[in-house]
Amino acid sequence: MNGDSSILDQLRAPVVLAPLGGGPGTPELAAAVCDAGGLGSLASGYLSAATTGEQIEATRRLTRRPFAVNVFSQGPGPADESVYRDYADRLGEWARRRGMEVGRPRYDDDDFEAKIELLLRDPVAVVSFTFGCPSTSVLERLRSAGSEVWVTVTSPAEADEACAAGADALIVQGAEAGGHRGSFADREELPVYGVLALLQLVGAGRDVKLIATGGIATGRGLAAALASGAGAAQLGTAFMRCPEAGTSPAHREALRSDRETSLTRAFTGRLARGIGNEFMTEHEAAPIAYPEIHHLTAPLRRSARENGNASLLNLWAGETHQLAQDAPAADVVRELVREAEAASRSLTARLAGPGSGSTTGSTA
Amino acid sequence: MNGDSSILDQLRAPVVLAPLGGGPGTPELAAAVCDAGGLGSLASGYLSAATTGEQIEATRRLTRRPFAVNVFSQGPGPADESVYRDYADRLGEWARRRGMEVGRPRYDDDDFEAKIELLLRDPVAVVSFTFGCPSTSVLERLRSAGSEVWVTVTSPAEADEACAAGADALIVQGAEAGGHRGSFADREELPVYGVLALLQLVGAGRDVKLIATGGIATGRGLAAALASGAGAAQLGTAFMRCPEAGTSPAHREALRSDRETSLTRAFTGRLARGIGNEFMTEHEAAPIAYPEIHHLTAPLRRSARENGNASLLNLWAGETHQLAQDAPAADVVRELVREAEAASRSLTARLAGPGSGSTTGSTA
Repeated sequence: MNGDSSILDQLRAPVVLAPLGGGPGTPELAAAVCDAGGLGSLASGYLSAATTGEQIEATRRLTRRPFAVNVFSQGPGPADESVYRDYADRLGEWARRRGMEVGRPRYDDDDFEAKIELLLRDPVAVVSFTFGCPSTSVLERLRSAGSEVWVTVTSPAEADEACAAGADALIVQGAEAGGHRGSFADREELPVYGVLALLQLVGAGRDVKLIATGGIATGRGLAAALASGAGAAQLGTAFMRCPEAGTSPAHREALRSDRETSLTRAFTGRLARGIGNEFMTEHEAAPIAYPEIHHLTAPLRRSARENGNASLLNLWAGETHQLAQDAPAADVVRELVREAEAASRSLTARLAGPGSGSTTGSTA
Repeated sequence: MNGDSSILDQLRAPVVLAPLGGGPGTPELAAAVCDAGGLGSLASGYLSAATTGEQIEATRRLTRRPFAVNVFSQGPGPADESVYRDYADRLGEWARRRGMEVGRPRYDDDDFEAKIELLLRDPVAVVSFTFGCPSTSVLERLRSAGSEVWVTVTSPAEADEACAAGADALIVQGAEAGGHRGSFADREELPVYGVLALLQLVGAGRDVKLIATGGIATGRGLAAALASGAGAAQLGTAFMRCPEAGTSPAHREALRSDRETSLTRAFTGRLARGIGNEFMTEHEAAPIAYPEIHHLTAPLRRSARENGNASLLNLWAGETHQLAQDAPAADVVRELVREAEAASRSLTARLAGPGSGSTTGSTA
C-alpha cells in the first residue's frame, strides 16, 4: 500500500472513470475526467498492446494528470469446444437467415503479457485489473515501476484473494454495474452482491482501500459510496453520453430510455449487464465461453453498430443508465461532487437529531 | 403526506425494524427497537387478524412508542393448479421418501380484509404493505384513522404505482434483502435492482419519503442509505440474532456462517432470499404459485425447525447476514447510529478536499 500518498487521496473529485472497452472509452474522455479532478481510465480490453500504447500516448498529450489503464486478467484458458459448439451452430444459422456472418470462436489472452511489458517500460499511475487477479510477482513488478495496482472484485472471497496477492486497492463491483462482471471466474451460480452489501462485507476487517462501482450515477450515490467506506466511486454509464465518449448513436439512444437491464452471456460468453433487446432475449441460453463467444458475435455487433441496429447490439449499461446526462465530462464530475456535498450536509443534519434533517426524496 | 410531522422525522434513530414473519419477529423485538429510538414493526403475514390484534396489544404493553404493522397485499389470486401440480407431486414424493408429509397447496389472502378492519378500529402509527399496493380507498381510510401508509417497492414502476395510489412513504427494497421480495407481482423476469441503484432511480423526480432496505447491516450502510436520500433504513437480518428475536437456533447458526445467499421460490412459490441449503438446491425449479407452495412446504419446514435441521429450513437472510451481531436490539440500534455518525464525519472530511479524508476500509 502507498498509504496517504495514494492516488485516491490526491484526487480533488473522488470520481474514477470506469474503463469502457469496445468503443465508449476514449483518450478524450479519460483526459476530461482527469482535468476535472477525477481519475480517468483507459480500457485496454480488446486492444493490442501496441494500440494500448498509442492510447496512453494520446491521453498524455491531452492531460498532465495521472490516469489508470485497465487490463483483462483472464485466467482459465480456452473453453472446451463442446461447451459452445451448439450455440455457435445455432447462432451461425440464425445469422445466415438474416444475411449476416458470425466470426470464428477462438480463445486469446487479450495480449496480457505484452501489455504488462508495455506498462513496465512505460508506467502509468494506476493499473487496474478485471476478470481476475494476476500473480503477486506481476503486481510487485508493476508497483516497482511506480504504479498502483487495483483489482476488481465481486465477492468477499475475491477480495481475500486480491489482498493476499498484494493489491493496493480493490474496485468493489456490485451487480448493478453495466458491462462485464469482473468476477475472477465466470460460473453458473455466481454470487451477485449489490454494491452496498459488498462494500460493507469487504470493508469489515480488511485494511485496504476501496473503490465502489455499480449503478452509481448521481452525487447521492457517490456520497453513499463514500459513506460506506469507499475512497472513491467508479462510474461508467454516467459518462457514456458525454460528447467525449465514443458511444455509438444507437447505444446513446438506448441509454436515454427507461428500458430495463439484465445480465446476459449472449454476446460474449461472460456475464454482463446490458439493456434488454432482441438479441439478448433470443440467445439467453448462451454458454460460459469467454472470449470465444465474443469473437463469434463480433461481426454481428460490428454490423449492427454500423447500421444503427440496437436490437442486435450489446447495449452495456448499469441499472441507473437513464440518470446519465448529455453533458461534457467536466460538468458531470462537477455536478456529482456538488450533489454529494449536498447529500453529505443532509446526512449530517439527519443524524444531528429528529426533525432537523430532510427526509424527502427530491430535496438534496 | 404528513409532511414534517411524519414518523420518520420524529425518530431519534433513523432505523426501522423490518417485519420478520414466520417466527423471528416478536413484540419484544419491536418494542426494544422502539425504545432505542427506532421504529419497531410487527409482521402480520401468516397470522390471522385476531392473532395480529393480540401481537399489537402485547407490543403496546411493552412500549409506549409508535410502531408499524406490516400487511401482505397479495393481489393476483389463486394460481392455476396446472402451474404447480408437477412440483407438488415431486415434492410429495421426495418428502415421503424421507418419512415426512407435505401440506395441501391452497390459496388464501392472508386475512387481508379482516386485518384492514382491525387496523381501522384500532390504529397503529404506520401500516406498511408488502406484495402490492392496496387501493387508494384502503390507503385513505387508514390515513383517516390516523396511520401513515408505507408501501414496499422493488422497481421504479412500482414506485409510480404506489405514489399514484397515495402512499405516504416508499420502502425501497433492493435485491440484497433477505426473505421475500416485495414485488407487486412475481414473474420470471423480475427486475432485481440493487438498493443503491433503486434509491437513486426512485428518488429522481419523486417527492415522497423513502425508507431503504436490503443488505444494510452496519452504520456505514445506514449512512449510505441516508446519504442517497432515504429518511431511514429498514433492517431485518441485522436484528435476527438479538435475544428478543424468535429466530430458531438452526437459523441463528446459519446466520453466523459466511454461506452465500441466493434467490429461490422453492419454499413458498414466491421469490425470496435465503442462505443456500439442500432444499434450495434440490428444488430450484419451483413454480410461481404463492401462497400455494408456502402451504405445500409448511409441514416440512415446521418439522425441520423442531428438529433443528437447517438443510430443509427456509433460512431467510440478506446478503450481509454474517455482519449481524449477538446483541440486544438496543445495542444494535445504538451501534448503528454511532457508526453512521462516524461515517458521516469521514464523508464530510473526504469531500472537504484531497488528503483530508480517510479512504481506508476499516478506520471509520
